[in-house]
Amino acid sequence: MTTSSNTPFKVTAGPLPASRKVYLESPSRSGLRVPLREIALHPSAGEPPVVVYDTSGPYSDPAIEIDVRSGLPRLRAAWIAERGDTEAYQGRRTRPEDNGLAAGEGLVPPFPSTHAPSRAKGVGGITQLAYARRGIVTPEMEFVALRENARREDLRAGAPADGEAFGAEIPAEITPEFVRDEVARGRAIIPANVNHPESEPMVIGRNFRVKINANIGNSAVTSSVGEEIDKMVWAIRWGADTVMDLSTGRNIHNIREWILRNAPVPIGSVPIYQALEKVGGIAEELTWEVYRDTLIEQCEQGVDYFTIHAGVRLPFVPLTVGRVTGIVSRGGSIMAKWCLAHHQESFLYSRFGEICEIMKAYDVSFSLGDGLRPGSIADANDEAQFAELETLGELTRVAWDQDVQVMIEGPGHVPMHKIKANMDKQLEACGEAPFYTLGPLTTDIAPGYDHITSGIGAALIGWYGCAMLCYVTPKEHLGLPDRDDVKTGVITYKIAAHAADLAKGHPAAQARDDALSQARFDFRWEDQFNLSLDPETARDFHDQTLPKEAHKTVHFCSMCGPKFCSMKISHDLRAEAARQAGEAEAGMARMSRAFREAGAELYQPKKD
Amino acid sequence: MTTSSNTPFKVTAGPLPASRKVYLESPSRSGLRVPLREIALHPSAGEPPVVVYDTSGPYSDPAIEIDVRSGLPRLRAAWIAERGDTEAYQGRRTRPEDNGLAAGEGLVPPFPSTHAPSRAKGVGGITQLAYARRGIVTPEMEFVALRENARREDLRAGAPADGEAFGAEIPAEITPEFVRDEVARGRAIIPANVNHPESEPMVIGRNFRVKINANIGNSAVTSSVGEEIDKMVWAIRWGADTVMDLSTGRNIHNIREWILRNAPVPIGSVPIYQALEKVGGIAEELTWEVYRDTLIEQCEQGVDYFTIHAGVRLPFVPLTVGRVTGIVSRGGSIMAKWCLAHHQESFLYSRFGEICEIMKAYDVSFSLGDGLRPGSIADANDEAQFAELETLGELTRVAWDQDVQVMIEGPGHVPMHKIKANMDKQLEACGEAPFYTLGPLTTDIAPGYDHITSGIGAALIGWYGCAMLCYVTPKEHLGLPDRDDVKTGVITYKIAAHAADLAKGHPAAQARDDALSQARFDFRWEDQFNLSLDPETARDFHDQTLPKEAHKTVHFCSMCGPKFCSMKISHDLRAEAARQAGEAEAGMARMSRAFREAGAELYQPKKD
Repeated sequence: MTTSSNTPFKVTAGPLPASRKVYLESPSRSGLRVPLREIALHPSAGEPPVVVYDTSGPYSDPAIEIDVRSGLPRLRAAWIAERGDTEAYQGRRTRPEDNGLAAGEGLVPPFPSTHAPSRAKGVGGITQLAYARRGIVTPEMEFVALRENARREDLRAGAPADGEAFGAEIPAEITPEFVRDEVARGRAIIPANVNHPESEPMVIGRNFRVKINANIGNSAVTSSVGEEIDKMVWAIRWGADTVMDLSTGRNIHNIREWILRNAPVPIGSVPIYQALEKVGGIAEELTWEVYRDTLIEQCEQGVDYFTIHAGVRLPFVPLTVGRVTGIVSRGGSIMAKWCLAHHQESFLYSRFGEICEIMKAYDVSFSLGDGLRPGSIADANDEAQFAELETLGELTRVAWDQDVQVMIEGPGHVPMHKIKANMDKQLEACGEAPFYTLGPLTTDIAPGYDHITSGIGAALIGWYGCAMLCYVTPKEHLGLPDRDDVKTGVITYKIAAHAADLAKGHPAAQARDDALSQARFDFRWEDQFNLSLDPETARDFHDQTLPKEAHKTVHFCSMCGPKFCSMKISHDLRAEAARQAGEAEAGMARMSRAFREAGAELYQPKKD
Repeated sequence: MTTSSNTPFKVTAGPLPASRKVYLESPSRSGLRVPLREIALHPSAGEPPVVVYDTSGPYSDPAIEIDVRSGLPRLRAAWIAERGDTEAYQGRRTRPEDNGLAAGEGLVPPFPSTHAPSRAKGVGGITQLAYARRGIVTPEMEFVALRENARREDLRAGAPADGEAFGAEIPAEITPEFVRDEVARGRAIIPANVNHPESEPMVIGRNFRVKINANIGNSAVTSSVGEEIDKMVWAIRWGADTVMDLSTGRNIHNIREWILRNAPVPIGSVPIYQALEKVGGIAEELTWEVYRDTLIEQCEQGVDYFTIHAGVRLPFVPLTVGRVTGIVSRGGSIMAKWCLAHHQESFLYSRFGEICEIMKAYDVSFSLGDGLRPGSIADANDEAQFAELETLGELTRVAWDQDVQVMIEGPGHVPMHKIKANMDKQLEACGEAPFYTLGPLTTDIAPGYDHITSGIGAALIGWYGCAMLCYVTPKEHLGLPDRDDVKTGVITYKIAAHAADLAKGHPAAQARDDALSQARFDFRWEDQFNLSLDPETARDFHDQTLPKEAHKTVHFCSMCGPKFCSMKISHDLRAEAARQAGEAEAGMARMSRAFREAGAELYQPKKD
């Protein structure tokens, strides 16, 4: 691992251990190449490298020089230009309030280079949904299809995938046409703002791999632009599929620009946060005009999806008064306060059609926010939560009418037995639009470990059909996550997403488990580390008790020592079984059959 | 927290923050008092202390002086003596091979004081199961009933418990008679060797709180007696309900004695480990005589339950040959090797009746080992695993015939969709004897994080009906857990067990969630820390970004800062709602009703 240091920006670059970046070339479109990660195995394995999905972008490719001040290559620019349905224009001018009036030393410098923003021209829809509905496979869809397959055809002829998919239908091979069809039906989205061409296309939908999101962002209390860029690069290194910038302090505009220009994954945001900063933090002073201006500002910068709490309607606010924890969504509480102060319906709801018009001009996707999600076990699945969910379903149909892509945010804090009802209701109310949940946390009693309380819920709801899982870090409820917390959160959620893929019977999921377990059984320690989600930690834990290099090839570990190593004994057993079989022509099998035929009668309990 | 330091033994003693030990006195039996933990709340809460189940034993009671060299008070000695059905006798003499021939400086000194062991006299069964079947409520059963209730009647009149219990039936109040009935039916066990009177009785069964076990033990490669005692005390401090001593190196006998004399929780062991040490680590040289001698040795010391891999039968061994990871249970692989080498049925199986006779004389419970559990996702729920499970069911009935208490061990590595089949098959095959599982791990790809991969599976199987969850630490597959790993494993499994209790609808489970969430909503930071499973970590994480004492009373935290604090806004909302209600007589409620009646029609999507 090396660090690319362009003062004051340091990000972690270089490949993971034993890994190299490989690219799948599109068979049909020159220049379309999909990054994957190949993990080399020890020669003794006699197996080809294991190929895995790769979210880390150019940072893990030593062939690409990283300069945070220049930003990433504009991968999708040619595809967007080729479609000919957008035009560059003179964008909105940055205003001091965009950065919370930060000035002088307090102002994060603007990103060095600028591009004029683009937006739709003419009347035809430019969104991936619009193209999908017209029957057109975009390069983004083809990219996504290759990426989801990840050389699935190379997989060892392993166990056939089984699973319980609860209505999801994951095909053996993902074709571009399948992607198009899923997007057209609203069952999947490809968040891809035309002003974020640096992004490598990815898909969110329950008939694809379960995805995870990591949140970053400074707050009024702490953190800086360098840290936030580093967290973004760090989060995708470990597997975050999208990143949300939840910044709320000063410099929001400039920090976001630095992040977007360096982000190979879709970036989400919650525009109400910045709008609130623009009115001095006073919810009552929010106006549609300020919010609209903020949407356009962020559309022009390239944000790929917006969390919009348009389902927090005036009549629902009183439903939260009897709750143990009231409203726990920041955006939800801000809008509830606005509604109550003005005694008016939320402008996010009443202006929803106008919001769609703005977003469709840039292909920004909705992440319809669950402003009334439960913040405690006591409040799970209550009337407020489900009233909002019904409204989100209503708004989904409005957005779809305008060709805007939609996903739906979900809870929150929910005990295990109430999770499936969330998934089922969401599918029904929102016409199978992808669900994107925070956890859910399955108990309230473990602050400091809420990555785990929520990882349990995330695995479950992912299994039930949730398309993307928003990570929770160990600092949830307590403080701002640092770099270590981000990594722990991402790895925990990769576990949840992968466990869900396995349980759904995703045809490509088990290959990595099988490769790692085979390495474990063969005492290929290095392979076991390298195939794991976090090779560095696995190696470090091993080395704490058996640090010597020689121990990486021994046929036991510190847990059991040589005499008690079950795997070593299993190898002896196999050798012995083979020997006996050789001696007596499949003797073991015959013996086994004989014993099974004798069955339970063989043993007669001793009579006293 | 203070450290009781009796060189060379240091253990962590003293109460947890804001906690004090309280005792519930039996209404009927003088001297029977059940320890609980009271967590005091801030005066502003206006609520009584929160009472929680307490596994930590005398170590957290400042009124009891801890001297590791003397051992704990012999709580149950009077009850056992009073029954008059056991007698002290001259026990087996310790032999050099009991400690792996350790001598001189290498020998762990024997525990300073000794008691003659006791065993059954006469013909009547002395086990808790025998008493339960005779309709007699023992002091242990009464203790357990009070302990499980944990002053349940004091719980705030909270939400009625709901849940999906999958056939478990947890009553609103646990009576001694209910405990007796569950034990009599074999659906619950109270592991309580008459030679471990220091143990505070606890129950394992699916109609009670889900329990967790922590493993400790030195290995041939590393660790010492002082460390192991400290780990035991440390594990129960954070919530381990039982502890298994899995030592495999030298000094097994003496280390076990030190642990037992200082353990207020049941101690489990795997006798084959010590038997193997006695024959120099060569599986083929194991004999029934050596094993039998080891059982008696450990019965006399006071081990409360034995893992016995009697289901690993000769005909099942070939069923494992095609597996990805063979046999991964140490005990299972040892016995498989023995069977194959001798071409004989396992003596654990053929001598099972004799084993029952030994164990019933001391009331040692069976933990029938799953020697053929799957060690990888690929091997889950295979023929070898389920053949063994059927055999364990057969052996359960044999043990029950002799009044020996039984629980059944379970996997292992199992993807989420295959977990429920394990639980259902176990209940059916083993007549509802309690299930005790290791995880299961829901994916193989995250060594270094297997507390999480398995915590997900543990929460699920606990929900489905598993009675006790054997923890997995972050070091699983990689090395021996240290103190921090033990704590992380225990807290993770407390989360899983509690999430399972909530999902099953345990009537007392949600009270702590509600209390913590209410504290969170009220910005009672100290209460939030103190009510959590790990107050120290919660406080530490908070202080990393907002360290000042003053910040423990502020109405926001570093995550969102003051302007974006949803809970602060929720309070404003409540105040505003109350004001409006005052002005216009329940105006909010009326308004809400009116809006709801208007329903979805209120918003008319804008037509373009």
